[in-house]
Amino acid sequence: MAFRLTAELSRDAFLGGRVHLFQPIGGYRAGIDPVLLAASVAATSGDSVLELGCGAAPGLCCLGVRVPGLTLTGVEIQPFYVNLARRNLAENGLTAEVVEADLSSPPASLLARQFDHVFANPPYFKSGKRSQADDDGREIALAAQTPLSAWVNVAARRLVPRGQATFIQRMERLPELLTAMQERLGSVQVLPLAPRVGRDPRLVLVRGRKGGRADFRLHAPVILHEGHTHGQDGEDYAAPISDVLRRGAPLNFPA
Amino acid sequence: MAFRLTAELSRDAFLGGRVHLFQPIGGYRAGIDPVLLAASVAATSGDSVLELGCGAAPGLCCLGVRVPGLTLTGVEIQPFYVNLARRNLAENGLTAEVVEADLSSPPASLLARQFDHVFANPPYFKSGKRSQADDDGREIALAAQTPLSAWVNVAARRLVPRGQATFIQRMERLPELLTAMQERLGSVQVLPLAPRVGRDPRLVLVRGRKGGRADFRLHAPVILHEGHTHGQDGEDYAAPISDVLRRGAPLNFPA
Repeated sequence: MAFRLTAELSRDAFLGGRVHLFQPIGGYRAGIDPVLLAASVAATSGDSVLELGCGAAPGLCCLGVRVPGLTLTGVEIQPFYVNLARRNLAENGLTAEVVEADLSSPPASLLARQFDHVFANPPYFKSGKRSQADDDGREIALAAQTPLSAWVNVAARRLVPRGQATFIQRMERLPELLTAMQERLGSVQVLPLAPRVGRDPRLVLVRGRKGGRADFRLHAPVILHEGHTHGQDGEDYAAPISDVLRRGAPLNFPA
Repeated sequence: MAFRLTAELSRDAFLGGRVHLFQPIGGYRAGIDPVLLAASVAATSGDSVLELGCGAAPGLCCLGVRVPGLTLTGVEIQPFYVNLARRNLAENGLTAEVVEADLSSPPASLLARQFDHVFANPPYFKSGKRSQADDDGREIALAAQTPLSAWVNVAARRLVPRGQATFIQRMERLPELLTAMQERLGSVQVLPLAPRVGRDPRLVLVRGRKGGRADFRLHAPVILHEGHTHGQDGEDYAAPISDVLRRGAPLNFPA
């Protein structure tokens, strides 16, 4: 598979213009998922944070802008996105290290380090389980070969004791994610994201703590959109989600 | 461990008096959990149904009264509850077979049969993980030695192809239950039961189909009680739950 090296880019605003990202017009483009994920990472100033599969770094940029004073590191397998991530982080005034690596065989420099937080938006589809995207980079972002358990495994290994891993994933793969987390992370919490009131949640935020011993918790779903149907033109995000997406508010797991 | 052979019994009404159960005053007594479980089993007249760990048969009685024409079978390890289950089923005008057996080594008569539906309310606690109940029978019902995976395994084996298993469990053990189901049952659906609006669900109904291939689904929680706090004296069940508990309505998983 050939890696993309050049592409036409757009410059897109996130967090109400607090973050701008260059993204390939025909490639993988961030939706709200990495923004919600970054908003849910409970990092505070001084923490070290690693994102696995950071892509063009929408998550790292949103988190770094929301929480100043973090030490930010990203791992990304695709050279084109590594370069774009570095450019996007610099454009947003952030200092960060982006490591070009396959997360299933991290380089020694990364193996020597541990982080207070690890977060990831692993590919939503299993390779071969869907029709392939036209764009190679988009295909890798959507359906990489690396199994979900490898993401969880790497996250757990790279955490300090009591460190926290946070993932966003399609609901369909929650059992697989929980199974992978079961032996490696404790104090697991699931925060489902439902499109509207009374509709099944389609995405989940899941976090766990290394060495955590608290009971598993499934929280009531966060509702993304107002109303029961998409009634009007334009956005209809529920107020707390609009705060997250347009004003850079955190998306806290319930206490 | 000595099995209870005699005990003082009470006679309790369920489903608004449609079902009456003899239960040991000092032993394990059915709350709403087996009633909700039985209401969620999507059996229709003519189906064969097996309950694992049926206890005094609150679940079999509620299901048998709600859906006439089922072939009902229960497995129960404790002789005292086997006898009580037989008595309760007869008292409620139901014909059923109750097999005295450890479900992790079912007798040949059971191994020779398969069922359209299997349901179970496995013990909520792991043995040794909680202070022991004074009553031996209650202790076995709450914290048996048999791991959750064995319950799922037996359920899956005793199902006809496309047959459905339904479980109720404490939320804390959902990851363990999903992990156990992952290799054995498909089309898994989770219906969380939340005490009130905005409160974390504490119980889950989980069902899966033998050979099912549909995506995993987590449904929006069913709310058990009206209001945000317990305001008035007496019951404050939400109307659909009151219909289930007091009028014998089904508790359907969303379509």
